Amino acid sequence: MKEPMTRKLSVLRVNRHEASEFEDTIVKEHSATIKINDREVVTLLCSPMDLEYLATGFLLSEGLLKSRDEIIRTSMNGDDRKSTVRIETKDSGNFSKYASSRRLIASSGGRGSSYGNALPDSQPTIESRVEISASEVLALVEDFHQRSPVFEATGGVHSAALCRPDGILVFHDDIGRHNAVDKVFGECFLKDISTTDSIIVTSGRVSSEILLKVARRRVPVIISVAAPTDVAVQLAENIGITLVGFVRGNRMNVYTHDWRVKIDGK
Amino acid sequence: MKEPMTRKLSVLRVNRHEASEFEDTIVKEHSATIKINDREVVTLLCSPMDLEYLATGFLLSEGLLKSRDEIIRTSMNGDDRKSTVRIETKDSGNFSKYASSRRLIASSGGRGSSYGNALPDSQPTIESRVEISASEVLALVEDFHQRSPVFEATGGVHSAALCRPDGILVFHDDIGRHNAVDKVFGECFLKDISTTDSIIVTSGRVSSEILLKVARRRVPVIISVAAPTDVAVQLAENIGITLVGFVRGNRMNVYTHDWRVKIDGK
Repeated sequence: MKEPMTRKLSVLRVNRHEASEFEDTIVKEHSATIKINDREVVTLLCSPMDLEYLATGFLLSEGLLKSRDEIIRTSMNGDDRKSTVRIETKDSGNFSKYASSRRLIASSGGRGSSYGNALPDSQPTIESRVEISASEVLALVEDFHQRSPVFEATGGVHSAALCRPDGILVFHDDIGRHNAVDKVFGECFLKDISTTDSIIVTSGRVSSEILLKVARRRVPVIISVAAPTDVAVQLAENIGITLVGFVRGNRMNVYTHDWRVKIDGK
Repeated sequence: MKEPMTRKLSVLRVNRHEASEFEDTIVKEHSATIKINDREVVTLLCSPMDLEYLATGFLLSEGLLKSRDEIIRTSMNGDDRKSTVRIETKDSGNFSKYASSRRLIASSGGRGSSYGNALPDSQPTIESRVEISASEVLALVEDFHQRSPVFEATGGVHSAALCRPDGILVFHDDIGRHNAVDKVFGECFLKDISTTDSIIVTSGRVSSEILLKVARRRVPVIISVAAPTDVAVQLAENIGITLVGFVRGNRMNVYTHDWRVKIDGK
């Protein structure tokens, strides 16, 4: 389903002394229910695009899918407001475990049980020797900002991208910052695009949940235009991930494993 | 528990040609488990402040608490990273219903089962005749932006406030935009501050879930500095809530029930 992500609407623009009608563009909100082998896993509020990537990425982030061979087929139906994405797998064992796991719901963007189930020490260290220069970080983020006409028009979506140091490979928008990241990983998984030695760029803040999604896909570098939390920084340090935040103008903050970020001319 | 919401950390600030260490301030991430009558309801990732307000507000937003009389006592324990908030109620009936309800997890900020359980038509229309002038909206938002030294220092929190047209009554910060709103409603509930005829201001985007929280507390006006989704606009229209978005500089967009917003001198 490739529904447009936005809708036109008549809105009153008001300042202190006057008001006028204009036609505004706002983001659509869609409800996607994910089923594995006909059992409902979750319902996500999301943008109505690339829902198979979203479903796959969500299951990856939750540790419910490991390899593409597990998927027999995916299918989807729905309307403008609601969809159901069905994923048929060879083994339903993982899901039973999930259904009985603790429900954890999180800070703005809260989702899933990852945090409760994947404590820092249970993630093997990421050894990737990939490096990126400060200029490459700035160029990636500049390109990233130009990739979202939906954000430009509505201000209502987050974006995420999988990159190599020299450019963006996969890019997605969603009203949820978690969904945008899941769509990226879902597409990579279904298209066999390797995520190791790559870089994730996100428009959203980096909490423990986002950091753990990235760790699960063995991505060694995460770049955010926004702020991280202290737990995300601690996890990144422990797992061996380079966490870059507040990329703005010509500068950035490097919170962990700064050896992967090279200064130009050094 | 009044833990500070932030932590100092040594960070590398990098531009194209140089790097230097500095001491940065970042937000803490905390894990709060809410229990009703010793049964676990949810674990929220949040800022470590005002957790009793957070727990109470969450239960209100989920429709699990109706009146203050239902609460026999609240208690809390924990450490720097994790807390448990226990709420003892007279009747545990509501919770059983909750535990068996569909799990709905949402776009960035996703939470709870509100959306699945409270469809537009099930919310009685809000009849409040409260009015606010465009200048009062601008003044509230200006004051709102100045209330958060944590945002100023870290960029890592959302804020929410309960207001009257002439000023802010209750204000909270949290790493989650949902949590900030829940803390506001939790404090109002525990202190018997009426939310009818009042105004909610939020720094976050307005999705259906946020709109429904506000509807549950019978608040007739929601003001956001950010974007709404189309479903939030539709719900606001149906329920009788004035939804104002993108309050920036000297202007704003009024999406629904614009008769409550008065132009100065008219």
